[in-house]
Amino acid sequence: MSHEPVDPVALTAALVRCASVTPEEGGALQLLEQMLTDAGFTCTRVDRNGTPNLFARWGAKGHARSFGFNGHTDVVPVGDAAAWTVDPFGAEIRDGMLWGRGATDMKSGVAAFAAAAVDFVRDTPPDGAIILAITGDEEGPARDGTVALLDWMAAEGEAMSACLVGEPTCPEDLGDMMKIGRRGSISGFFTATGVQGHVAYPHRARNPAHAMVSLLHRLTAAPLDEGTDHFDPSTLQVTTIDIGNPATNVVPASCQAVMNVRFNDLHSGASLTAWMETAAAEIAADTGVEIAVETRLSGEAFLTPPGALSDLVAGAVRAVTGRAPVLSTSGGTSDARFVKDHCPVVEFGLVGKSMHQVDERVPVDQIPALKSVYARILKDYFS
Amino acid sequence: MSHEPVDPVALTAALVRCASVTPEEGGALQLLEQMLTDAGFTCTRVDRNGTPNLFARWGAKGHARSFGFNGHTDVVPVGDAAAWTVDPFGAEIRDGMLWGRGATDMKSGVAAFAAAAVDFVRDTPPDGAIILAITGDEEGPARDGTVALLDWMAAEGEAMSACLVGEPTCPEDLGDMMKIGRRGSISGFFTATGVQGHVAYPHRARNPAHAMVSLLHRLTAAPLDEGTDHFDPSTLQVTTIDIGNPATNVVPASCQAVMNVRFNDLHSGASLTAWMETAAAEIAADTGVEIAVETRLSGEAFLTPPGALSDLVAGAVRAVTGRAPVLSTSGGTSDARFVKDHCPVVEFGLVGKSMHQVDERVPVDQIPALKSVYARILKDYFS
Ligand SMILES: [Zn+2]
Ligand SMILES: [Zn+2]
Repeated sequence: MSHEPVDPVALTAALVRCASVTPEEGGALQLLEQMLTDAGFTCTRVDRNGTPNLFARWGAKGHARSFGFNGHTDVVPVGDAAAWTVDPFGAEIRDGMLWGRGATDMKSGVAAFAAAAVDFVRDTPPDGAIILAITGDEEGPARDGTVALLDWMAAEGEAMSACLVGEPTCPEDLGDMMKIGRRGSISGFFTATGVQGHVAYPHRARNPAHAMVSLLHRLTAAPLDEGTDHFDPSTLQVTTIDIGNPATNVVPASCQAVMNVRFNDLHSGASLTAWMETAAAEIAADTGVEIAVETRLSGEAFLTPPGALSDLVAGAVRAVTGRAPVLSTSGGTSDARFVKDHCPVVEFGLVGKSMHQVDERVPVDQIPALKSVYARILKDYFS
Repeated sequence: MSHEPVDPVALTAALVRCASVTPEEGGALQLLEQMLTDAGFTCTRVDRNGTPNLFARWGAKGHARSFGFNGHTDVVPVGDAAAWTVDPFGAEIRDGMLWGRGATDMKSGVAAFAAAAVDFVRDTPPDGAIILAITGDEEGPARDGTVALLDWMAAEGEAMSACLVGEPTCPEDLGDMMKIGRRGSISGFFTATGVQGHVAYPHRARNPAHAMVSLLHRLTAAPLDEGTDHFDPSTLQVTTIDIGNPATNVVPASCQAVMNVRFNDLHSGASLTAWMETAAAEIAADTGVEIAVETRLSGEAFLTPPGALSDLVAGAVRAVTGRAPVLSTSGGTSDARFVKDHCPVVEFGLVGKSMHQVDERVPVDQIPALKSVYARILKDYFS
């Protein structure tokens, strides 16, 4: 029995038409489940706390050669709907582009790997398994998304030997970059509590703004490091400082600030928490202002060292696009930070330029090219 | 013809019962005008832009020996009315205290100098003039208060040879301090404008929070000075810093901050404005973040050097209270900052402990004592 290959552009368009703004499922996972079931995949909806997720496997459970794809169908809100040139959920094709929320991040990626997987198992059924772990909560809190899928898989004895996350990874041209790790991310929340008073009598007050300025100056004064073999330098950004005191003659009682650190493999959530707490304690001791520190870790830095998996993906990229991808760890976080605790993981996808923006769109011809890369990865992996 | 002396406690109580919260006249100036007119003063209401003020003179206009008193009848709002033990406008006498808004700041002071002046011109009419310049806007914006009185006086050829402002000046005991000058006050308003972006890509953003922290750190790092012969060290307090960015992954676009400087005679509004602007320009050049600076000067520092006027007042204080007042320039601003452009000015009044607070109150026996000090000043001045 012969099948038409799956058209990844039509599939992307169908997914874009599902208004799956986190946490809405929007029909996107249902559509994929139907298509994958028809192609012989065993599908399970792994929803947790109302968050929709889809697990699909072709081939034997627990096979030693189980290649996984991870991605998400949820999208960020459209923002200012009036500012869009097109209907954000219209999936219109215009000027060689497919327009819509999620066109880049990452319904085209999901469509490309789902299409590649379906064609592959139909045309050249491998001795092994292909797993698609697709979440409806990557853009949201991500507590019940890929983490829920991985928890469920561990409980069920489902495992991937290697995994590719299909997030956009290329800065300029398809094939110019893949990710072999990610920096970690931690936020620090500071509350300085002093003694309110009149500015004319500062000796009777203790100004938390001054303590906070000293603390933030100390934490931002020097770069955290100069980078490592596979990582850029860590960066720190103060995201807010707030007092809200309208009276120019009043020393405020408290001051709050937040910072976020994107850190490389020289640091950890624990080391950075200790660094912030130590600095705060020193400033507090110097000034008499109490400074409370809370941190929230989004993910540790991690690296899948260059090797078999990155060679496989880079080879497929080069074969299809003619470009040798840079092996990078730059950019934000992704669900690869969860997958890395289960199996080697790398990331490769489209050019991410318009993601999360108004008029998000993808060049139509990149979608079949991406499908070809994923198809080549499967072919080489199972050959 | 012989008169009963004016009872300054009854007069204070009558004034407290006038609810003259800025900008309300509340009947306070009318009451004084009536009493002063009855005693032979020439009274003129010098209202400007709806702000009530009272000018009163006994004796010849333009006399070379014209002693002036300055004060205000307006009061700050009661604040949390439910937190008061008494009716804030009830002028209740309880536990040896007269309670009410303005009891300390400064209806007792106005009552004491008005009572002293009336008794004095009745009992021992001097060869000279006594001027009372009383405003209904000292606690508010103070644009049409004592300034309006002084403008009007200059236009009318009315002048004081010397002036005493009757604001509370004593920290602990009646007689322990008088003021011979005041520090200046200037506020600086800073707006840093950078480039918004994602914390994972700080090279594409320019963080105004970092520029503001650098600026505030530079401006607060070292004391402005170590004080001068008659002044405490200048002080600087950051009163607010505000960004209001709820997103921990977003570099904010702008950051605002305000600081207030209380400065001595080593500085001026112009020198401090230049200092803030220079620092902001340097940080802006270093960071690429624009920083706008605006300043608002409430008053320059000024000093009435120790001499005839301060000797007169200190002598009267010592004669009545047994205390030698410290000649100070500490504390906030007062309308003396306007008077000093017209004639030598010093300040002496009650203990200011409960001013602007809930349950503002004054020990009843301090009021006649203060009247005695003012009476002694008049006696010595005209003798
Ligand atoms: Zn994504
Ligand atoms: Zn006052």
